[in-house]
Amino acid sequence: MKMPFSSFLTFTLLSMQLSIVSGGKILVFPLDGSHWVNMKVIIERLHARGHEITVLRPSDSWYIKEESFLYTSLTLPCHGGFEENFDTYLSQQLEIRLQMKPESFWSKIWTQMQIRWVVLDQFTQFHKKVGDIITHMFENEDLMQSLHAAKYDMVLTDPGIGGGAMLARRLHLPLVFNARWTIHGEAHFLIAPSPLSYIPFTGTELTDKMSFPQRLKNVLSFFIGKLTLSYITDPSYKPIVRRFFGPDVDYSTFFLDADIWLMRNDFVFEFPRPTLPNVVYMGGFQCKPSTSLPADLVEFVQSSGDHGIVIMTLGTLVSNLPQDISEEIAAAFAQLPQKVIWRYIGPRPNNLGNNTLLVKWLPQNDLLGHPKTRVFITHGGTNGVQEAIYHGVPVVGLPLFFDQPDNLSRVKAKGAGVIVDIAMLNRHIFKEALMTVIYNSTYGDNMRTLSKLHRDQPMKPLDLAVFWIEYVIRHKGARHLQTHSYKMSWFVYSSVDVFTALLAAVLLVTFIWISVVRFLLRKIFTGGKIKH
Amino acid sequence: MKMPFSSFLTFTLLSMQLSIVSGGKILVFPLDGSHWVNMKVIIERLHARGHEITVLRPSDSWYIKEESFLYTSLTLPCHGGFEENFDTYLSQQLEIRLQMKPESFWSKIWTQMQIRWVVLDQFTQFHKKVGDIITHMFENEDLMQSLHAAKYDMVLTDPGIGGGAMLARRLHLPLVFNARWTIHGEAHFLIAPSPLSYIPFTGTELTDKMSFPQRLKNVLSFFIGKLTLSYITDPSYKPIVRRFFGPDVDYSTFFLDADIWLMRNDFVFEFPRPTLPNVVYMGGFQCKPSTSLPADLVEFVQSSGDHGIVIMTLGTLVSNLPQDISEEIAAAFAQLPQKVIWRYIGPRPNNLGNNTLLVKWLPQNDLLGHPKTRVFITHGGTNGVQEAIYHGVPVVGLPLFFDQPDNLSRVKAKGAGVIVDIAMLNRHIFKEALMTVIYNSTYGDNMRTLSKLHRDQPMKPLDLAVFWIEYVIRHKGARHLQTHSYKMSWFVYSSVDVFTALLAAVLLVTFIWISVVRFLLRKIFTGGKIKH
Repeated sequence: MKMPFSSFLTFTLLSMQLSIVSGGKILVFPLDGSHWVNMKVIIERLHARGHEITVLRPSDSWYIKEESFLYTSLTLPCHGGFEENFDTYLSQQLEIRLQMKPESFWSKIWTQMQIRWVVLDQFTQFHKKVGDIITHMFENEDLMQSLHAAKYDMVLTDPGIGGGAMLARRLHLPLVFNARWTIHGEAHFLIAPSPLSYIPFTGTELTDKMSFPQRLKNVLSFFIGKLTLSYITDPSYKPIVRRFFGPDVDYSTFFLDADIWLMRNDFVFEFPRPTLPNVVYMGGFQCKPSTSLPADLVEFVQSSGDHGIVIMTLGTLVSNLPQDISEEIAAAFAQLPQKVIWRYIGPRPNNLGNNTLLVKWLPQNDLLGHPKTRVFITHGGTNGVQEAIYHGVPVVGLPLFFDQPDNLSRVKAKGAGVIVDIAMLNRHIFKEALMTVIYNSTYGDNMRTLSKLHRDQPMKPLDLAVFWIEYVIRHKGARHLQTHSYKMSWFVYSSVDVFTALLAAVLLVTFIWISVVRFLLRKIFTGGKIKH
Repeated sequence: MKMPFSSFLTFTLLSMQLSIVSGGKILVFPLDGSHWVNMKVIIERLHARGHEITVLRPSDSWYIKEESFLYTSLTLPCHGGFEENFDTYLSQQLEIRLQMKPESFWSKIWTQMQIRWVVLDQFTQFHKKVGDIITHMFENEDLMQSLHAAKYDMVLTDPGIGGGAMLARRLHLPLVFNARWTIHGEAHFLIAPSPLSYIPFTGTELTDKMSFPQRLKNVLSFFIGKLTLSYITDPSYKPIVRRFFGPDVDYSTFFLDADIWLMRNDFVFEFPRPTLPNVVYMGGFQCKPSTSLPADLVEFVQSSGDHGIVIMTLGTLVSNLPQDISEEIAAAFAQLPQKVIWRYIGPRPNNLGNNTLLVKWLPQNDLLGHPKTRVFITHGGTNGVQEAIYHGVPVVGLPLFFDQPDNLSRVKAKGAGVIVDIAMLNRHIFKEALMTVIYNSTYGDNMRTLSKLHRDQPMKPLDLAVFWIEYVIRHKGARHLQTHSYKMSWFVYSSVDVFTALLAAVLLVTFIWISVVRFLLRKIFTGGKIKH
């Protein structure tokens, strides 16, 4: 009588008449660096499903290879300078973060302001470079004509930069975002109602439960973000928009064109918040079951016995930490009964314990999926955190840049990890954090609950993403899912005119009423007097 | 290389480890009447999937049978009086609607106000009856103890009435809504941000594109709705809430308890608007492919040739229309080259054409799915409209009660049908409307586009509904999908305190600044004087 849900779904899905157009043509305008890692996962699947993919890249692109069996690349004859600038960006930020006096409230505020300022400056430089690429592209009439002539079905892009959205409008093509951020902050802030009373603004490290001072901070952060936006966009994009789209076009409207927003998060990870019909959540789309470990690691992992292992990696961007911090980390590791695998590039710490294995690269997914893994020490990049959730491994977070503090504040709020401030880190604090997560079972339990919830979805996130990309190809867009609010001024959207009219009406009625009463009273009064 | 999406899905879904708990126990507190038709579709599927279902019903329930192989019924020893009152309700409303002077703006306003007033009164009576049922249920300690003891996994209910939500809170059970309305209006208005500038309030017949006067109407309607709410809830529910839950509990909060809202609409039908993570759209979940027609209809339908057929039904609630209107409808039909199948109970119109077949019942789904069907004349009930969309048949709408005008205004806004005001109906107007929809191909084209979009979903709506019901059973709720806003006062939610504090700070700084400047000026001024 009862069949398992999967085969039940199989049956009903087989009976659905879904068909993809044969060989969709997809134009990709990617964001270089770690964002490309995400985009590539989607491109791989799209390629496997028979779509033709064309990727635009600058001649010096960093992660995006010119040659690939997955796509045809169109190399723009200009420099993005991603690779050469990124290292400088990060060391600047790290330097400030390490100077933070942990005990002082004002030092924290000061550090955060400094970081914000530096990031603002870095963003401005970065987007200027992106602006140059876009200008090169639009100026190249041969290229633009060939893009027109190629009759793509849609543009797939990361809205971290505006080029893809501009390109889509210029080519009159449907637009799909692989998104988590726009230049305005976390992507929802641009499109969905976002009450600041329970939706923490980007970069605040706040949660959905805020005290009064926290809500004050949230509101101020939001308005500072609003105010500084033009500082970034004006030099980078304003001239381009004016030149190629007209003087009255607002840069932000390019993002509102999107037919579908494929968001790299879900509500297991993110705090529940208002959303929109054209937003699709594909958080963890890159996650996959673990496979067996390489031979050299198997023995080391097995030797950990019941204590299990600890994994540490700060991602691909940070090659090494200051020596004194590495020494403290090594000292803390040496005191653990667990075995430790540490992705570490740099001079070997003097006090490295016998239980700690330094590696230049580690099979993160396979280690996270290994039953002996007890804790994952991470900088809190989106991919790493999503993989930790997928595999149900609790986290000790060492946030360094960008979205990392926000990502880890979500993990912490859900009781699935603790955060150590890198500026406060010493062997005692770090060991304490590790012991807490390893031996207080609530962290592991909470993370395993998140994992269960994350895996229990009607459809796998990557399949869902591909479904909606092909949906846009099939129906030549999905404009019917865009709210009409995008086409309204803030004035009309907020009903300011209606409320003003109502207020005026109330005042008018009150005025007339008072006048009439006064008139009548005077009549009676005067009449009385005369009668007297 | 490329596989069709369905088998691709099959593969990936098979590899997902979804399992349902064996034999979930579901307690259903339904809403009687046409809402039960919807609920039964879900119950049938849940039964087929091996869940145990218990349905609560009053002793005189109307649509809900005591005996069914689908569920165990628990009959409450009280009267709901649904059946006996409903006819009166409808004829009262119809009478007012028919008196509307179509040419006059003020007559329309006056009629709408009268209808609103009558509906308010009817709702108050209706909810008082529901309140009696709830009181009976909560007073019956044996029943409540047996419900406790039965250890249900969840409550499934229609939030058109509050009983199910109260029951869930009393039994501490997860709660799933099969929803489109609450007593507050269309369900989203209670839970999701709903800017009145582009989201038409319930009963206004407006669209998402409103002129200034329309937005004014929308805002006024919303506030009138807010103001009249307590008129309905105070006599029906306030005493119950006070008695069984405490003096400080707000009736509306029971609805916010819902783990999942299964909404009987989607964004092919509804205007796109903000939504929330725990809202699932299952619009058209009751729709299914047509099967062959009964023998007696086959010949009649075939005889229509290329002209095709017209179907008319005003649903199960309206048995007959006033005679003069029926005569006009019959006269219009007689002038058509199409064949007409008209569900009609009442005295046979004198001028009935040879092309018109009167039937007491018609196989609506099979007729809508028939290739010869050219137009569907409907009162605009949700089910009928959803089925018209599913089968891609354009509509001539004759809205009568409740949500019907709103439903049809959506169809009209999407260019998939026209609306005829019943108070204006004569043979010419009605024939004109029919000819327009039949011979202007845009109506059919638009409806077929809606149909294509509606059918192109990652998962069938009913499967999606069942998935989320079983999800709630598997995880004992889905509270992690509820926004924190539900737990906040409007004061904090709207950040009134934060903005007041900021304003105060600005004023204080300004004051201090002015004072200092004044002080300095005076110093300088006075100093100058002395020097003089």
